[in-house]
Amino acid sequence: VLTKGESTKQAILDRALFIASTDGLEGLSIGGLARDVGMSKSGLFAHFHSKEQLQLDTLRHAVERFVGKVIAPALKAPRGEARLRALFDHWLLWERDEFPGGCVVQTAIVEFDDREGPVRSFLLESWRDLVDTVTNILRAGISVGAFRADLDVELCAFELMNIVSGYRRHWRFFRDSDAELLARASLAALLRRARL
Amino acid sequence: VLTKGESTKQAILDRALFIASTDGLEGLSIGGLARDVGMSKSGLFAHFHSKEQLQLDTLRHAVERFVGKVIAPALKAPRGEARLRALFDHWLLWERDEFPGGCVVQTAIVEFDDREGPVRSFLLESWRDLVDTVTNILRAGISVGAFRADLDVELCAFELMNIVSGYRRHWRFFRDSDAELLARASLAALLRRARL
Repeated sequence: VLTKGESTKQAILDRALFIASTDGLEGLSIGGLARDVGMSKSGLFAHFHSKEQLQLDTLRHAVERFVGKVIAPALKAPRGEARLRALFDHWLLWERDEFPGGCVVQTAIVEFDDREGPVRSFLLESWRDLVDTVTNILRAGISVGAFRADLDVELCAFELMNIVSGYRRHWRFFRDSDAELLARASLAALLRRARL
Repeated sequence: VLTKGESTKQAILDRALFIASTDGLEGLSIGGLARDVGMSKSGLFAHFHSKEQLQLDTLRHAVERFVGKVIAPALKAPRGEARLRALFDHWLLWERDEFPGGCVVQTAIVEFDDREGPVRSFLLESWRDLVDTVTNILRAGISVGAFRADLDVELCAFELMNIVSGYRRHWRFFRDSDAELLARASLAALLRRARL
């Protein structure tokens, strides 16, 4: 159960995610967010203290939501292809429907590729967790005999993430109605290589 | 032969590309660029008139350079796998070495995915030209019997571009020394599927 302060903070972070999705993490300011949620700037400072803390809390909020909406449903599916497909399906929905401008973490990776500091460190750590999750799903598939024992799980995770990035580019940037077809055809080719 | 005005403009655009590579097109301003190249702001306004025009000219400059450094060497290689590999090799070098923060067009695609206007239109057009170039290279490979006649060239182009994006993410963001290994292993898998 959340306290009132905590649930206010969650509501503010929901709004921050929405803004950062289109304007980037750098487009997020305590002043702008305060106006947006109808709070005073000093009220917001009490929650976040600095722009950097706001960026970090927003990213942490995004990662928690991603775990709930993409990772958790995948882990409920049986090991093997079903689990990999569940991950992929929820991930495409996440990129398409969750935020107006797509996943804030993907945007932040471009924004912070050459800016040192805690935001970049947090992104690196989160991405490594994600790679671990994907490779664990692939290894679970190997353990139940769905995927080849000699499958290069690091390469396969790299390729799965590349398909999601390609989907995002086609869907967000080109507004290409074939984005999903291309992504699914690409996944099918990856699965053919991964199978026993 | 370039006139003095043209070669000054080229030198300014070289610098603009350098800045936009790390700061994004939105991080590029006529005032900032003027300070950077040691010209007056009004002198720079005479060349570019507006921030939007500066962004467009910078992108056009990037595309011209990409054609010279990536497309032209690829088209000099024999049709088939050699040409596709030449394209890929020069493209990785482009992402790695050409600018301090990687290709400005890739960054701009994230910056302008939801901003309508001439910059977005130019990016769309340039990207379509690039997709056409890649699919033509694949079709040339089919015509010389290097690739399967039923190869889905659109899908293959999508996947090739996804590998380059993945390389960029691993190299720029994770600073992962395995970035090139992953990208080359991914290309090898793509070529195995494409071959007769």
